[in-house]
This record gives sequence, C-alpha cells and structure tokens, in this order.
Amino acid sequence: MDYYEESVRLHREKKGKLEVVTKMPVSNKTDLSLAYTPGVAEPCRRIASSEDEAYDLTIKGNFVAIVSDGSAVLGLGNIGGLASMPVMEGKAALFKSFANIDAIPIVLNSQDVETTIQTVRNIAPTFGGINLEDIKAPECFEIEARLQDLGIPVMHDDQHGTAVVVLSGLINALKVVGKKKEDLKVALVGVGAAGTAIAKLLLSWGVRSENMLLVDREGILYEGNPAIASSEHKQSLAKITNTNKVRGSLADALVGADVFIGVSAKNLVSKEMAESMNKDAIVFAMANPEPEIHPDVAKEAGVRIIASGRSDYPNQINNVLAFPGIFRGALDIRATRITESMKVAAAEAIAGMIENPSDERIIPAPFEDGVADTVAEAVKKAWLAETEKQN
Amino acid sequence: MDYYEESVRLHREKKGKLEVVTKMPVSNKTDLSLAYTPGVAEPCRRIASSEDEAYDLTIKGNFVAIVSDGSAVLGLGNIGGLASMPVMEGKAALFKSFANIDAIPIVLNSQDVETTIQTVRNIAPTFGGINLEDIKAPECFEIEARLQDLGIPVMHDDQHGTAVVVLSGLINALKVVGKKKEDLKVALVGVGAAGTAIAKLLLSWGVRSENMLLVDREGILYEGNPAIASSEHKQSLAKITNTNKVRGSLADALVGADVFIGVSAKNLVSKEMAESMNKDAIVFAMANPEPEIHPDVAKEAGVRIIASGRSDYPNQINNVLAFPGIFRGALDIRATRITESMKVAAAEAIAGMIENPSDERIIPAPFEDGVADTVAEAVKKAWLAETEKQN
Repeated sequence: MDYYEESVRLHREKKGKLEVVTKMPVSNKTDLSLAYTPGVAEPCRRIASSEDEAYDLTIKGNFVAIVSDGSAVLGLGNIGGLASMPVMEGKAALFKSFANIDAIPIVLNSQDVETTIQTVRNIAPTFGGINLEDIKAPECFEIEARLQDLGIPVMHDDQHGTAVVVLSGLINALKVVGKKKEDLKVALVGVGAAGTAIAKLLLSWGVRSENMLLVDREGILYEGNPAIASSEHKQSLAKITNTNKVRGSLADALVGADVFIGVSAKNLVSKEMAESMNKDAIVFAMANPEPEIHPDVAKEAGVRIIASGRSDYPNQINNVLAFPGIFRGALDIRATRITESMKVAAAEAIAGMIENPSDERIIPAPFEDGVADTVAEAVKKAWLAETEKQN
Repeated sequence: MDYYEESVRLHREKKGKLEVVTKMPVSNKTDLSLAYTPGVAEPCRRIASSEDEAYDLTIKGNFVAIVSDGSAVLGLGNIGGLASMPVMEGKAALFKSFANIDAIPIVLNSQDVETTIQTVRNIAPTFGGINLEDIKAPECFEIEARLQDLGIPVMHDDQHGTAVVVLSGLINALKVVGKKKEDLKVALVGVGAAGTAIAKLLLSWGVRSENMLLVDREGILYEGNPAIASSEHKQSLAKITNTNKVRGSLADALVGADVFIGVSAKNLVSKEMAESMNKDAIVFAMANPEPEIHPDVAKEAGVRIIASGRSDYPNQINNVLAFPGIFRGALDIRATRITESMKVAAAEAIAGMIENPSDERIIPAPFEDGVADTVAEAVKKAWLAETEKQN
C-alpha cells in the first residue's frame, strides 16, 4: 500500500479524523432546559463558587489541548500551524483510542515564544491538560518551563514521551545484559527536544553525570567550549553532563560506551563506530524515518540490543506507549504538573510489563493491552508519593 | 421538575456534555500508519503547499470555537471564563444537534480586549469559524469588529443571533397587522450587545432612522446629549437613530410606537405604557428570565402580537433558530465573514417557514424541522450574491 496516497484519500473522504458529539441529548424542550437555559445556570453558579466543581460538571477534567506552532513537525520541519493539523488530529485520535481522553488540536498562527505562552495561558481554563507538540528547540524548553505554574499538567511530548519510552527500554536492556545504571557509559547524539529530555531523565534516574556524553555538531559537549558560547541551551547541558570534560567527536564518544542513543539523523553511526562500543552494547537509533545505524548493520557490528523507531524491527520506540497513560494518570489524580518522578514511574511501569526481557523484547509493542492503564496507575502513585513528601 | 437540581445531577453524572470521538480508527499498525506516521506526512505537505486543502483534509471546515471570557453570562453576569463552561458546552451541543457542526468551548483566563483578540487570532488556523459568546458590551463590539479580517466567519451570537430572530418575527408580525417597515415607529430599550445589533439590523433592513428610538438609563438616546458623552458606543448609536432628536423617557418613546423591543430588565414596561402604543402594537419583551412586561399584562393592555424569551408562551425568541443555520451556511460556502445581507437573508428564511403567520405564530418553535437547513441555504445565497456584486 502507498501510505501517502491512501492517507490523503482517507483524510479527504472523512474530512479529518475527529468529531465532537454530545453526551447529553438536546432534542426537545426538556433536554434544552437541562443542558442549556434555564437549568445550566446552576452548574455555572456551582463552579463560580468553587472552581474545582468544573472537574465534575464539565469536560475540563478529561479535555486536553494539543498545542502546536508547527515549527518542528515529524520529518517535515517547519511547516506552520495550519499544515500540522493532520498530525495534531492524529495525536488526538491516539489520546482517545489509548486513554479515552477527549483531545483537540489547537494550531497557532504565530511561532513567537511570548505569544504562544500567553495564548496557552489564556485558553487554559478550558482544559485539564496541555500537550505541547512539534515545537522546535530551543523555544520548546522555555515555553514548557514557563507554563509549569498553570495549575494543570503541561507536557511537551516530543521531549518527555520519547524520554520515558527510552528509559523503559533501557531498564529492561540492563536486566538482559546484567549491567548497573551507576556504571553505564552513555553517548547521546542530538540535543534537540527529545535528546535533552532523555539526557535529563537518565540523569535523574541514576546515570552519572561524568558518564553521560552528549554530542552535537560541535562534537562532545563540555563546559567552557567556545563553540557553544552562543547557545544557552547547550551550555546548560554541558554543565550537567560530561563533568570530566572529555573532548572529541561522536566516534570518540562511542569508544567503550555501553549505550548509544541517537535522536539525530540517518547513518551518523558507522559499523566501525558501533564495533568500538563496550561488550553487550545497547543501541537506541531513533532518527526518523531512517535510523542513525541500520539495525542489521548494528547487529553485524556485534551490538546486542537494538531499538529504533522502525515498526518492522523489534523494540520499536513509540511514544504512544507513554503519553496516553501519563496524561490519563495525571488527569485522574488532578496533578498540577508532570514531574520527573512521574516520568520515571511511567518508564518503570512500561518496563514492568515485560516479564522476561530479551534482546528482541525490551518494550511492549504499541498495541499491547493495558499499557496506558498500567502507566496511569504508576503515574498517580508517583504524584501522591511526591505530594505527601512535600506535606 | 427542579431544572437547577436536575441539571446539576446530569452534568455531574456525565461530566459535561461533549465528547471527542475519532472518525478514523486507530486500532492497529495499518490504522496508525494512515492516521498518523508515516502516512499523515502527505496530508500535511498538501496543506503546506495549498492552505485551502485544510478544508478537505482536516476538521477545520466544520470546526467552530465558542469563545467566551465569561463577562456577561446569561442572567448570571460576570462569572468568568471557567464558570461559563457549562453554557459554552451547551452551545456546542446545540451546534451539533441543530447543524452537525463540531464545536468546542474555549473559555478565557482574561477579560482584556487586546488579549482576547490576540488569543483568537493565534488559535484561528484551527477553526472554520469563531462564535463569540457572553462577552459584555461595549468590549464585545470592538472584539468582533477587529476580528473581521481573520478570513473565517467571526460572529458574536448574543448580538446577531438574537437580532436575526427578532427581525424574522417582525417580518411576519407586519404581515399579520398589515403595516410597512417604512412606517414603523420602534422603541427599543437596552443598548447592550443584543439591543445594538437589533437596532442596526432593523436599520439595514429598512426601518427609518428617525423612527428608531433607543432608550437606556439616560432616557431616549439623542445626539449631543451630555449624559452620554462618556460612552463612545452610545454616541455612535445616537448618530444613526432618532435623527429628529426626540427627548424623553421610555414612557415617552412608547407613546404611539408600533413596535416595542426590550432587551433590558423585567417589568420596565407598565400596562399603562403598553396601552399608549399605536393600534396593532407589537411587543418583543425579551428580558430573561422575566420579560419587560408579562405577556398576559401586555395582552390586557391591548397589544396584538407578543413575543418573549419564555418557552411557555407563544412566539418564543430563541436564537437557536438562527446561529446553527447561519454558521452551517457560512462554513459550507466558506464565507470569510457574516455580513448584514446574510443576516437579513437568515431572518427572511426563518420568517418564510411560517406559511400563514398569526398573532400567536410569527416564528417557528425551536425544534421545528428544517430551520437550520433553510437558514443555511439562504445564507449561502446571500454570500454568493454579495461576492458576485463585488466582482
């Protein structure tokens, strides 16, 4: 099947992927009096006197906005808000299918950080959560960070959804190869949205700063490198990783590494580079649609565990394993944020679904039953534990 | 039935009134490849190269945002965006039930004119139309006016929905009593959102400026009255009405009037005032929930045709007769605005549904079949006629 042509045909036939339906009928005078005037005045009054009532009397508590400025869409790059609508509708369809969350796209007419932040703030009362999507780095970091005080969960899925699934795969990979997180040497290439979030999540989970080498166009990031002086973002990453200030190229970073994580571009890693990794090497090659090293090549190079974005190879890293359950849990427990401990809990829950991990099965497939529910439960518990600790 | 308690019970049981469902399933790998990656890239590319494709490949063309800052909600006043959610969800339910339009609430965290305008501009690519709702006067006028260049229809329903239904009732009332619009003396009390729009629509339809008296707290509006010097809005209304500069009170305005239109407060009109009107008087007493004069009292005073917001009396003025069909027509024809001629056409279409108008039947009841379709057809034709005229 030609996925592109068939996708266009289907989108045209259906005119998009979503529909808004009514849970309370409005087909006669009595219906109208209850769903609308005069009856509706009373739910309004209840919320006016106690805002929490909005979670019980309206859709707010199950309603998520998928907000995008279309500046970094899939493999398409900066195509703008309007052209990103099909992706955002697709994301909404996944929210519904995997976690019964009512989600809608909100695509923006601007790519200005301040405008996006103000717009999200202004429409926030409508929603129980905000999923930021396909917003380019470094803007995505500031937008997400400054919206954490909204009182509802705000998560940039390109960052954290991917990070959670990578961590879940890594947890099981370590079980398979019998290594400990404290000893892991990690080389990660690509410090955009996903790479940054993966690095931070692995650090907060327990990878040591000196063992985490991030690589970008300038080679291995290290504090004080004049080549990154113009990027606040890279400087801040250099501060929390590679504390021994190792210098070099991606090839240098891979020598003796236990784990390679790629969120960059195809074919960056040669067979020779993969061969230079430590014994029982683990590779997450997630460039889309073609990975940093083809899974077959990595195998030939002696890599033991290989994960990628490809659905035609084992261990597909797909953030649909994470975001529906994370939001389901956060909405159900009315969490005001999505914290690092909730993300780690989500990763552990996904990993825990595989009873006996093996080289070719470190994570569940996207459509395995119960993933979202399991993640949601773990996320709720983590939030409760964290808020109790604070009280 | 206690509508308030039953409404709260239903809202709590259902957790609001809307649900977002998927028109394309996402339950296996193939579905995912078509609704999401990799297939979805192609619909995105099509829109990126031709924006119009968004109308065929996404929900945009049938997707309406009901935007409110909650500053003037029903009879509740300024309760804020969040507390207005139940009303906005109800409105969305009406859009769906009456015109199969997918509508969602967007309630705002601000009541600042500039912020509201900027927010609507920024989220506009998502939607095929914007229904402004329950925003107080005079802010609503500026917000609506400045959003007319968005390229999609933006209509404040509190203004124009009501105005269209009043005009439709008036058209039939004149048939019943055998009067002409050129001769009508109209007294209208309340120059907020609805009153202003009604006055302007009646003028553009054919009521003469000198015969249109608007009444507010300062009495009959006239140009040059120092009491309205602080209100740009009232001054602008005084310029286009009452060109003979009649002065006086509401009681004075009613003497000899053919039509009374009230969008103000209960019991403003006494039986004696109604008795002072012209023969075959027509009264639209639309204060909610209690009209300016009780229908029974108006009847006793000799008023011939009485309309009100009450569903327990004949001739209920309910803007559900207008807005679903107006938006349906505007969306179907991809109108970029909703013009005066489209509103007049909508009013005439509603009026035309009553074959033999009578004192107690000048407009259809809210749930009569075919109203929205009839209105939509008329609106489409009016838009086509107008755009042809311009070319």
